[in-house]
Amino acid sequence: MCDLESSLSNAPAPLEIHKVSLPQEKTTLQSLKQRLGEIFFSDDPLHQFKGQTPFRKLVLALQYFFPIFQWGSEYTLKLLKSDAVSGLTIASLAIPQGISYAKLANLPPVIGLYSSFVPPLIYSVLGSSRDLAVGPVSIASLVMGSMLREAISPEKEPILYLQLAFTATLFAGVFQASLGFLRLGFVVDFLSKPTLIGFMGGAAVIVSLQQLKGLLGIVHFTNQMGFVPVMSAVFKHRTEWAWQTLVMGFSFLAFLLMTRHISMRRPKLFWVSAAAPLASVILSTVVSFAFKAHNHGIQIIGHLEKGVNPPSLNMLYFQASYLPLAVKTGIVTGILSLTEGIAVGRTFASLKNYQVDGNKEMMAIGLMNMAGSCTSCYVTTGSFSRSAVNYNAGCRTAVSNIIMASAVLFTMLFLMPLFHYTPNVILSAIIITAVIGLIDFHAALRLWKVDKLDFLACISAFFGVLFISVQMGLAIAVGISLFKILIHVTRPNTVIMGNVPGTQSYRSIGQYREASRIPSFLIIGVESPIYFTNSMYLQERILRWVREEEERTAKTNENNLKCVVLDMSAVTAIDTSGMEALMELKKVLDKKSLQLVLANPVGDVTEKLYRSEAWDLFRSDCIYMSVEEAVLAMSSGFKSQG
Amino acid sequence: MCDLESSLSNAPAPLEIHKVSLPQEKTTLQSLKQRLGEIFFSDDPLHQFKGQTPFRKLVLALQYFFPIFQWGSEYTLKLLKSDAVSGLTIASLAIPQGISYAKLANLPPVIGLYSSFVPPLIYSVLGSSRDLAVGPVSIASLVMGSMLREAISPEKEPILYLQLAFTATLFAGVFQASLGFLRLGFVVDFLSKPTLIGFMGGAAVIVSLQQLKGLLGIVHFTNQMGFVPVMSAVFKHRTEWAWQTLVMGFSFLAFLLMTRHISMRRPKLFWVSAAAPLASVILSTVVSFAFKAHNHGIQIIGHLEKGVNPPSLNMLYFQASYLPLAVKTGIVTGILSLTEGIAVGRTFASLKNYQVDGNKEMMAIGLMNMAGSCTSCYVTTGSFSRSAVNYNAGCRTAVSNIIMASAVLFTMLFLMPLFHYTPNVILSAIIITAVIGLIDFHAALRLWKVDKLDFLACISAFFGVLFISVQMGLAIAVGISLFKILIHVTRPNTVIMGNVPGTQSYRSIGQYREASRIPSFLIIGVESPIYFTNSMYLQERILRWVREEEERTAKTNENNLKCVVLDMSAVTAIDTSGMEALMELKKVLDKKSLQLVLANPVGDVTEKLYRSEAWDLFRSDCIYMSVEEAVLAMSSGFKSQG
Repeated sequence: MCDLESSLSNAPAPLEIHKVSLPQEKTTLQSLKQRLGEIFFSDDPLHQFKGQTPFRKLVLALQYFFPIFQWGSEYTLKLLKSDAVSGLTIASLAIPQGISYAKLANLPPVIGLYSSFVPPLIYSVLGSSRDLAVGPVSIASLVMGSMLREAISPEKEPILYLQLAFTATLFAGVFQASLGFLRLGFVVDFLSKPTLIGFMGGAAVIVSLQQLKGLLGIVHFTNQMGFVPVMSAVFKHRTEWAWQTLVMGFSFLAFLLMTRHISMRRPKLFWVSAAAPLASVILSTVVSFAFKAHNHGIQIIGHLEKGVNPPSLNMLYFQASYLPLAVKTGIVTGILSLTEGIAVGRTFASLKNYQVDGNKEMMAIGLMNMAGSCTSCYVTTGSFSRSAVNYNAGCRTAVSNIIMASAVLFTMLFLMPLFHYTPNVILSAIIITAVIGLIDFHAALRLWKVDKLDFLACISAFFGVLFISVQMGLAIAVGISLFKILIHVTRPNTVIMGNVPGTQSYRSIGQYREASRIPSFLIIGVESPIYFTNSMYLQERILRWVREEEERTAKTNENNLKCVVLDMSAVTAIDTSGMEALMELKKVLDKKSLQLVLANPVGDVTEKLYRSEAWDLFRSDCIYMSVEEAVLAMSSGFKSQG
Repeated sequence: MCDLESSLSNAPAPLEIHKVSLPQEKTTLQSLKQRLGEIFFSDDPLHQFKGQTPFRKLVLALQYFFPIFQWGSEYTLKLLKSDAVSGLTIASLAIPQGISYAKLANLPPVIGLYSSFVPPLIYSVLGSSRDLAVGPVSIASLVMGSMLREAISPEKEPILYLQLAFTATLFAGVFQASLGFLRLGFVVDFLSKPTLIGFMGGAAVIVSLQQLKGLLGIVHFTNQMGFVPVMSAVFKHRTEWAWQTLVMGFSFLAFLLMTRHISMRRPKLFWVSAAAPLASVILSTVVSFAFKAHNHGIQIIGHLEKGVNPPSLNMLYFQASYLPLAVKTGIVTGILSLTEGIAVGRTFASLKNYQVDGNKEMMAIGLMNMAGSCTSCYVTTGSFSRSAVNYNAGCRTAVSNIIMASAVLFTMLFLMPLFHYTPNVILSAIIITAVIGLIDFHAALRLWKVDKLDFLACISAFFGVLFISVQMGLAIAVGISLFKILIHVTRPNTVIMGNVPGTQSYRSIGQYREASRIPSFLIIGVESPIYFTNSMYLQERILRWVREEEERTAKTNENNLKCVVLDMSAVTAIDTSGMEALMELKKVLDKKSLQLVLANPVGDVTEKLYRSEAWDLFRSDCIYMSVEEAVLAMSSGFKSQG
């Protein structure tokens, strides 16, 4: 605690008091325009068009909508070499993963290959990421499979199931493209990272548990996704466990996990884990063929149709009975795959120091899925694991996607019969190896250390997915994330501030222990906008601070409290309820013969105060530019009175 | 634009640089305790118990739970006189309004009287407001009527309807009491005032339109509540309009509106409008009896059972088929009546300068409704109109509610037959007069002037109630209010700051035109917590500011940009995504050879930075206590380099 005089003695000679200015006058239309501009065009997408010739503008526009024109003209043989290597590498990963993920979505394996052919081609023309490897991904496959299965059985009604999968893919694409087109890209930001960590971890566990069916060779399994039904199914059907499958499955799983471990230790050996799935498929197929494994209880993929993607426009299914399901599945898988695609694109863009435009990327992914739904593909996006391999293999442009698609095409045309004897168990091992990387203990631990509420969102998503359902887990986590924002606004921090010796700054005395209170003053910092959700709380909380301060000064025989200063620096917005609370507070304190003054209201708040009746109450001498000036002005007032 | 040297020349000799302190170390448990304390016990309810003797504590506890012990011991004859006058005055209003509001909820008129007897008695023991006049209110009656009517017809199944009304009342009471008991009182704060203005205005219009049935004497009317069906019903049944009813209705309506006008002009003549309803009832009943009005097409109330509230515990209905409806109706009417009761209580408490404890009040209102549901009462709360009359009539304590209840008891026991000939049309006129005051044009106009989004929430609620449904209108308005908070956090303001000449303060150059930029520096104020919803936006927006600044300095040949200062004063919270965005930003700017420094992070933010990896990136020399110190330290660094 310091004396007023001495605490201010370091300050320069009595300051002139500055008027708190209003921001420049704007009409409703102008502020609406600015507001909407920040919401929808915050990235200023037309920036590069400014001051260009019409021809140049046309070229830029073409390049804007088809990024291939941007890098295509500068494409060289050297780039092609890099892209060919990386393209073939991801193809060797994409083929077994495509087949596996299709099974995860309860779709015929060949759909997974179709989905690794058309979408990458379209993305290479429209997409702005150079590193994204496009195709089916585990999470979206899992969610689509579990949502559709709730309503119809893929075993009993395979055609209807397939129709709904394509229809859901169409809606996913339409939803994604319209988010991009309407510049609502910020919607994906509402899936916070802690939420996603928990969600993906939960989904990875669920997916891995589902693979126990394949790994143990169980024939009769549950259709449900939860932890409890899956585990009980595993142990209920113990008689169905087949030792041949078990041995084969776990050997290859160990092999795959080992290669994964090697590549993680030495990023230069990325090709070890990248080539392992294809190697396992080839090896296991040879073994299975040689030993006639299907006669020994090992399930095999069986016949696969040769040929390129058949059109599926006629398969889209718009009848009212299943339409809501298709729309819902489309939106959920659409937003999930969008989140993964954009996050992956941004991650690698920042590593190579280029920009990925979120809204444009959404349109690219959306159009790719719309086209996919008409060519027998299901939901695709940028895959995290394959993009990482792509990046490590030295891809330079989206041409690597074209190379990959060509390799898939070659496979579909000529190599399909080779997969006939591939054991299912190998696909399960590949899936487990792929999803196990989604469980990120370290990230969860970091959340716990830094932010408990983020951790809560994370584990809620995890357990929600595991024990309730995939969608509910997601919904709970989003709910908690939003609740966190609302609770911060509903019960904001208020701090008591003091002068930091030797400066004109006033800071929280809880944070800066050297900061000292100014006698006769109570300086309160409000750390949130003042809204209807907190106006009543803040009013009561500030009165409680005043009461406690009065009790404290009475006890220590200090100067009586004369003035309450509200530091409004962090009050970034105010609404009508908030202003009423301020006025009410002013009146209550007036009755106690205490002055209430405001320090440093920001532009928007000043403007709103000015437009309301609060201005009449505060204007004359109760709004200051800084706490410093408020304290100086008010204390000189006390002196002239005393 | 000013030169660095001159702009800082007013400052005192080179300041020592202050370390940004961390708030006092707290364990997880301590901070959780403090956090929960602020959420649930922000009013510090145990404050008065501190340092008291055990006996005194017991007395205080009794007084806390039964406020009647607080004022009861000091009650005098003088107070009784005031309370008797005001109690009789509100009784004269409560009797006709009780009968009318019961009809609004499609209940027998006598239920309205029952509800004006038991609940006021209970409130007078438990309630902490001295001015609240308790009984049925228009909004809750309307909502209960419209929600129950959607499922069952009060004409065809009157008993079931009545059972559900009592059951819903029970659930309303349980919900209200548990909100209070669990100290979740802040839930009612989520109904913002603009929302309520719009909602109440819309409800008032709906209620008034419904009264056209009575005023015009229409026999066949619609059961729906919307504007369109009601108006079409009015004009479809034009043949049923009865001129006798019409003349009587509009004469009395004109009389009632006139008395209302008089009382509003001269608050001292409050008794004019307070007595008018009863006078109208008496007069119209006499007229109706004398002219045998029911033979001339005027509908009358008819037979009313004499006697006191019968018990209704046996009428509570818990069968599964209608339970969800009863619970839903209970919660919606419960929260609405709670909002009205608390708002009214607080309004008059602040006029008389005493405190109403929200959580305690909720328990009182909840217990009153629970008791009411067992004694043939439906949902009650503090009525705005009657409480105003109570206040103006000079009530002093809750005894006025006891007096009112006694008058209602006397009426129920002895005067019921007198209402036999009371025309229904008079009840319609009374309802319209009561609700018309809920339409507050001036408040809506003020909202438009001060806050456009608040205005949007207000008119959405209004039109939602009018054209969709009462519940949907409410839901839309709450949604818009919450969306407003989220959009503020999703697209926060960022401002460029400059030094205000002659001070050490840095302020937005958009607000303070005298503030001048510091050469080589870009000072950006972030006006919001940095969360997952805005971290990507802020990152891109700040990079855009940097790009624009670089373009500007290149054009004007100024010093190159060397340092970006983020003023974190208004960043009141940060989550893990926010910290990643800051680190990402730091790395991107580093690549451009630009320094990124943070100024004045608040306690929570500093603590989180400290606990995360961000600290290693920023700690050494990139976090300052104020913008001033950051600018001084960095520019002295430039000089020593140059």
